[in-house]
Amino acid sequence: MTTAVDRVRAAYARIAQVDRPEVWIALRPQADTESDAAAVDAKVAAGERLPLAGTVLAVKGNIDVAGLPTTAGCPAYAYEPDTDAPAVARLKAAGAVVLGTTNLDQFATGLVGTRSPYGAVRNALSPEHVSGGSSSGSAVAVALGIADIALGTDTAGSGRVPAAFNGIVGLKPTFGLIPTEGVVPACASLDCVTVFARTLSEAEQAMSLMAAPSGRALSAPAPRAPGPWRIAVPELGQLGRLDPGWAEAFEAAAQRLSDAGAELLPVDLAPFTEAAAMLYEGAFVAERYTAVGAFIDAHPGSPDLDPTVAGIISRAKDIPAHQLYADQQRLASLRVRALATLGDADALLLPTAPGHPTLTEVAADPLGVNARLGRFTNSTNLFDLAAVAVPAGDVNGLPFGVMLIGPAFTDERLARIAGLLDNPPLRLAVIGAHLSGQPLNGQLLAVGGRLVRTTATARAYRLYALDTLPPKPGLVRVGEDGGTIEAEVWQLPAEGLGVFLAALPRPMALGSVELADGSFVTGFLCEPQAVEGAREITSYGSWRAYLAALPRP
Amino acid sequence: MTTAVDRVRAAYARIAQVDRPEVWIALRPQADTESDAAAVDAKVAAGERLPLAGTVLAVKGNIDVAGLPTTAGCPAYAYEPDTDAPAVARLKAAGAVVLGTTNLDQFATGLVGTRSPYGAVRNALSPEHVSGGSSSGSAVAVALGIADIALGTDTAGSGRVPAAFNGIVGLKPTFGLIPTEGVVPACASLDCVTVFARTLSEAEQAMSLMAAPSGRALSAPAPRAPGPWRIAVPELGQLGRLDPGWAEAFEAAAQRLSDAGAELLPVDLAPFTEAAAMLYEGAFVAERYTAVGAFIDAHPGSPDLDPTVAGIISRAKDIPAHQLYADQQRLASLRVRALATLGDADALLLPTAPGHPTLTEVAADPLGVNARLGRFTNSTNLFDLAAVAVPAGDVNGLPFGVMLIGPAFTDERLARIAGLLDNPPLRLAVIGAHLSGQPLNGQLLAVGGRLVRTTATARAYRLYALDTLPPKPGLVRVGEDGGTIEAEVWQLPAEGLGVFLAALPRPMALGSVELADGSFVTGFLCEPQAVEGAREITSYGSWRAYLAALPRP
Repeated sequence: MTTAVDRVRAAYARIAQVDRPEVWIALRPQADTESDAAAVDAKVAAGERLPLAGTVLAVKGNIDVAGLPTTAGCPAYAYEPDTDAPAVARLKAAGAVVLGTTNLDQFATGLVGTRSPYGAVRNALSPEHVSGGSSSGSAVAVALGIADIALGTDTAGSGRVPAAFNGIVGLKPTFGLIPTEGVVPACASLDCVTVFARTLSEAEQAMSLMAAPSGRALSAPAPRAPGPWRIAVPELGQLGRLDPGWAEAFEAAAQRLSDAGAELLPVDLAPFTEAAAMLYEGAFVAERYTAVGAFIDAHPGSPDLDPTVAGIISRAKDIPAHQLYADQQRLASLRVRALATLGDADALLLPTAPGHPTLTEVAADPLGVNARLGRFTNSTNLFDLAAVAVPAGDVNGLPFGVMLIGPAFTDERLARIAGLLDNPPLRLAVIGAHLSGQPLNGQLLAVGGRLVRTTATARAYRLYALDTLPPKPGLVRVGEDGGTIEAEVWQLPAEGLGVFLAALPRPMALGSVELADGSFVTGFLCEPQAVEGAREITSYGSWRAYLAALPRP
Repeated sequence: MTTAVDRVRAAYARIAQVDRPEVWIALRPQADTESDAAAVDAKVAAGERLPLAGTVLAVKGNIDVAGLPTTAGCPAYAYEPDTDAPAVARLKAAGAVVLGTTNLDQFATGLVGTRSPYGAVRNALSPEHVSGGSSSGSAVAVALGIADIALGTDTAGSGRVPAAFNGIVGLKPTFGLIPTEGVVPACASLDCVTVFARTLSEAEQAMSLMAAPSGRALSAPAPRAPGPWRIAVPELGQLGRLDPGWAEAFEAAAQRLSDAGAELLPVDLAPFTEAAAMLYEGAFVAERYTAVGAFIDAHPGSPDLDPTVAGIISRAKDIPAHQLYADQQRLASLRVRALATLGDADALLLPTAPGHPTLTEVAADPLGVNARLGRFTNSTNLFDLAAVAVPAGDVNGLPFGVMLIGPAFTDERLARIAGLLDNPPLRLAVIGAHLSGQPLNGQLLAVGGRLVRTTATARAYRLYALDTLPPKPGLVRVGEDGGTIEAEVWQLPAEGLGVFLAALPRPMALGSVELADGSFVTGFLCEPQAVEGAREITSYGSWRAYLAALPRP
């Protein structure tokens, strides 16, 4: 078994390997982290049950970790908290080991990841592109495989946009579900602690460990009406300008939900995008001045302040209260319209962001590019909704992500629906004992398999009768001298294919097999040694034909 | 794409192949079913959205299907319903095609599957063993891959025991969630329509389509306290006598939940087993007389009546009402004790049954063997709980199953927890470009991989430097003339391994690789053609060592 110490050492090795110093604001010395990990290992050895034993955790720099400075991305703002934020404390109590605090758009104001005196955070997969923010370092630490999970915060998309840009999962829980004590407020009435992870299940586990039994959390979600998952999907025309290929990727995600049995419903996105635009254009930005305005006013021109962030917050000083009242009334009426158009939908499907800018593009237009990024995320917190951001494929070599947004306290349900995107059914070509009616066909059925079609391989293979029990054929690619062999293509759930592979005995193997139509699909092969001395039966064209020609015993 | 007609044809081909006529009471003529399937295909072609298009459905013989006799396992009782039961109608409306009605323990009275004038139903995997009942034919039809999903009923375990015995999933929903109109009652205050499927997701989809927005369904579950899943697990001593190997299999299932992060809690099983014993020993059996007693009395000695079933129900005629009052009071107090001992647990983990008898054993002691089978299932409906029965491995070549039982309306949560048993993490040995720090290592991280340990293969392999981009090694088993090669063993979620395999390009393959300690694990191999003319690098003992020795460009 890997120990917590092993996992921590691997994290530092990975940090050295990737050369992304801007991810961190306060990376702990390896000796300190190893000592924490050794304590976790000792507890486990003593029989203590720690669900996150050895899980490597990164924490956004606006969340208190005892012993590290809380900076919120501003060196001059730093203070040394005596205690961990409850969210951090709960994960540590479950066995997680904190690596350090991560970089962010200063005061969690931004969706780009570049607004920090600690450096612009580069995307995990493409250093010319932004990481997304404001939880920039946390998302990149997870995407690069340094941390297993990381905490972020989300007021307007900060826990989701960087998840999308780095190809990982970001959970934006219902407001109030995770305590925000020990978090530097951005907009205190909207802030949520979020989780990043590479898989949904890791993110959900962390979330379940941090949830607080607050008065609010006692309100259960309304039960849903019966029927398949109902997913509200806006028309492309309402999404505005998207990066090239993103509309197609969004439609493919909707199609995948539909293929998994969900019902797609129309929805009017207008109340959502109108509310989103209010976040920085309206009076709500004054709440950021409430949080850190006095500090910014006291440090005019300080190099520790990001000029874009300082400008946004300073300008909010003079917003009159009567405008806030008016905006709150308008927001309430937009929320009524939004909930009405969602109807009995379980979730709203949206791209997480409309596009993915480069560092250069952000530098050229810091406010404009940033404002565009929040088009789909800004309204979630304003409307008191929960959201799950998950990867949904790649476009032009960069990750594309979508959100499932739903009513407060439907966090678990949204994650289940998002899981449908996570695991598209996969295909497997079988040529021998797994064909329909053959002795091992039940193994495919047992893992949820379903026959898609009967076809044949490309004319590039030889078939051998192997000396196995039950008798199986071995397929070997030889290229031009080969023949074509009957094959059945089966559809399996992703976990079913994994389980099937894990149970596969020698000398069988699975690889990529070319079919008669020139396409490639996962299919049966075998170890080279197995065909040595075996009878070649390519000329039968099919395992079934070979069996039928055998003399009856 | 497979059409509904294709899928129906495959079902009849499978029926012909397996030779299990006792599964069916009324199998529809293939022409009728194909005609229904063609209608589904036409709707899909016309753009209609049918989440179950082409799903092949079997229906227990005590549930109304228009055009087929409803027999409840008794030919003389048969009537021809004009309309489908709502549960059937909703699945058909979603595109399912009904194959026919299935055999059952007569009047759903029994857990064995042998109490039927239509024949004893043999287990799908071992014809000497019972199928379990009372939903015997439905479970076997799914386990044999004839039907995709099947309806059962469950009053005391009839939807779960046959799932366990045949290695499939059985969902026993909260009472009232699925309408029971059009179902021949066994105990009307306890009866639930259930679903069998080979995978949890197929079963859950069917359940969501059948659920009724009844007044009762509007009660949402209580929200859970925060923290990891809490699973109540009784001590083995409280489970009574289990078949050989079943205690170990049960403990392994509990351990798997624990490994997945769940907290295991102690629980006192006594109130559950005491209530279970009341089902046939107490006054509750009188409700079966209410349902079909007059019919049985009117057909004394009829060959259409199963003598065991007729005896049980006839004897219930004289149970006095005052005993029922007393039993109801005792049950209420046992229920209070049961809920108190569960505390804030999310679910109770139990073996689905204590053992799996043969047909011969049941014939020798029809009442005693049957009564034992209900030890863990009988109390669920009496206590108004929901349950999910899932496979949890094999013992002596036969399936072993467990249940997760929880409060009413936690059906979705129970299925999520059961999913942890479904998909244990799997292992993969990597030897080349996927090693830590190598260019493709991120592919493992992206699917949730985690390094377990660094080791080496058995001394039986040769390593070749393949002509691929990025450069990869090819591992070939040669037996005695081989060397040992450095390997990292990674742990991946089952779906992660499936996704990883599906994306694997030629000429790489995955099969079973022997490690230095003699164990076998899924690992990297390659197509034979790839190593022809490739440089053998076995002597380096490691891909990393070979790379380090290459001249720097």
